Amino acid sequence: MAAGHPAQAALRRAVRTCVAGHDATEGPDPLVLAAVSGGADSLALAHALLHEGGPTRTGVVVVDHDLQPGSAEVAERAAEQCRAMRTPDGRAHEVVVVRRVRVVSTGVGPEADAREARYAALAAAAGDLGAALVLLGHTRDDQAEQVLLGLLRGSGARSLAGMPATTTRGGVPFARPLLQVDRATTRAACAAAGLDPWHDPTNVDPAFARSRARAVLATLAEDLGPGLPEALARTADLLRADADHLDALADEASAPFAAVAEPCTADLAVLPTALRTRVLRRLLLARGARPGDLSAAHLAAVDALVTAPRGRGPLHLPGVEVTRVGTGRQARLSITGAGLV
Amino acid sequence: MAAGHPAQAALRRAVRTCVAGHDATEGPDPLVLAAVSGGADSLALAHALLHEGGPTRTGVVVVDHDLQPGSAEVAERAAEQCRAMRTPDGRAHEVVVVRRVRVVSTGVGPEADAREARYAALAAAAGDLGAALVLLGHTRDDQAEQVLLGLLRGSGARSLAGMPATTTRGGVPFARPLLQVDRATTRAACAAAGLDPWHDPTNVDPAFARSRARAVLATLAEDLGPGLPEALARTADLLRADADHLDALADEASAPFAAVAEPCTADLAVLPTALRTRVLRRLLLARGARPGDLSAAHLAAVDALVTAPRGRGPLHLPGVEVTRVGTGRQARLSITGAGLV
Repeated sequence: MAAGHPAQAALRRAVRTCVAGHDATEGPDPLVLAAVSGGADSLALAHALLHEGGPTRTGVVVVDHDLQPGSAEVAERAAEQCRAMRTPDGRAHEVVVVRRVRVVSTGVGPEADAREARYAALAAAAGDLGAALVLLGHTRDDQAEQVLLGLLRGSGARSLAGMPATTTRGGVPFARPLLQVDRATTRAACAAAGLDPWHDPTNVDPAFARSRARAVLATLAEDLGPGLPEALARTADLLRADADHLDALADEASAPFAAVAEPCTADLAVLPTALRTRVLRRLLLARGARPGDLSAAHLAAVDALVTAPRGRGPLHLPGVEVTRVGTGRQARLSITGAGLV
Repeated sequence: MAAGHPAQAALRRAVRTCVAGHDATEGPDPLVLAAVSGGADSLALAHALLHEGGPTRTGVVVVDHDLQPGSAEVAERAAEQCRAMRTPDGRAHEVVVVRRVRVVSTGVGPEADAREARYAALAAAAGDLGAALVLLGHTRDDQAEQVLLGLLRGSGARSLAGMPATTTRGGVPFARPLLQVDRATTRAACAAAGLDPWHDPTNVDPAFARSRARAVLATLAEDLGPGLPEALARTADLLRADADHLDALADEASAPFAAVAEPCTADLAVLPTALRTRVLRRLLLARGARPGDLSAAHLAAVDALVTAPRGRGPLHLPGVEVTRVGTGRQARLSITGAGLV
């Protein structure tokens, strides 16, 4: 059997490094779960986890988003394939469960809603099963798409920072071992293992921003060379480190302003631009601005009130109004919840 | 005549804001130059400068790169069109000169070599003519191409930061007033002014990275919507501010290490990632690494020597060798010029 196939070896190495390096798996007899959609990435992940898991206990949670007709069958077929997986010495996943989630529309978009529902279901399943860690099957291609979507938003380092290798949701640690692996490798690994992944039709439906990003990346790789996903993923790593540090500095720098009703514009103006825009964002959010709707262009307009000699507003932003009051060294920034005006 | 054409009005507004806001033009009777290639962007810039320049004295430097047959004729035709420009009250540019430059191959690539030669010639001309400021015709589309090329390098915020609105070369201040204006506007302004711009065939020659980026952006705008150049340009602004601040912090953080022959890895490891990679870059450059060849992947390898428990090198990087010497809290980073090994 093709346990020695290079694609499978690459995935197993990635899973091994991730699980071995994760604090959460240091306890006695930890259970590690793979989150499975039925697509090639997550099926290959579940397969690699089973083969690399021992002595760790392994399992699978298949998430059924219940958004398309036949989704229950897709989930059950994925679960069956995970239950049938065996190591050369006959070991199987200790547990394979299907969780159907109910996606609630919150107004931020169907993809974000589905993601929220998925993480909540995975965290709940991890809690029920006593799992130490949940692995997600995002690949380098997913990361590249994420960066491209961030570029389109044009809202800076954080939106270009992509997905982190580890994260925590609902108290449960999640990890993405395949961020350095490309999608071609997960497909090859499935083929080598005789797995039959599901091809999600929404992946090629141009109604979804991510599908368009996927199509564009394929075109770009043709025009500009195959190194693009790798370059985008590396960009994400570097910018995530930048954003983490600048956010930490901005948290510190915001503290003195948070306690003041109307901060002096002169005190804000002396901050370096990178910190000032982040501090302003924090001040606006604290006074009721809606994070999803607050754009880089909005922040630039507030920044101009602070730094430019002209203009006093009021700026009508999502959830808040901003006005410069007073003059010269006495000028202050008034930020009021729009609902209160 | 079409002085009231919206495209011309947009360019004149951009030039006015730039010249009025620039310290260099605060002296008595300053001369402001437009750098002209003969293309639509720079011809439209020269036209807008003449109309907005007064009371400032205005002039034009046409740069002939002498890289293509007929380049002297292209330059002369551009100069003629600039000499023929008149304001409604009959004012012309005070000076219009052509400077032929010799592009010297330095090994970093033909586009970078041409750029170096161009800035040197412009700075020399500005010195000869006693100019206070030189305007460059880069548009938002150029900025977007620059960001896309930076993405392909995958080397972080600075490579995505695009072109700054102002810069200094050879002691001469340069400004880019059209970074918020798109190329369609400069073309429309040329047409409205009866100017006949030159269409550089290298702009569509796929042998040049910038031409490929230009073609890709056109495709992307079709697939993803017309807001992309604006989003990329805004990304550049935000990331430039981030890179400026982090570079300043890294300069400070590097100082204690610069004086030490072999810095302790533990002292480096406690720095936040965003600063640590920048400090390492500075240390490597100070010991002889070649800046053009030192990639993000190289830096990641050095960073792994500092932060990962395994691996000691030596890493053979462009111009330097890096080894971890000693163990535990005593481990140090040895960086030696590769020529000396």
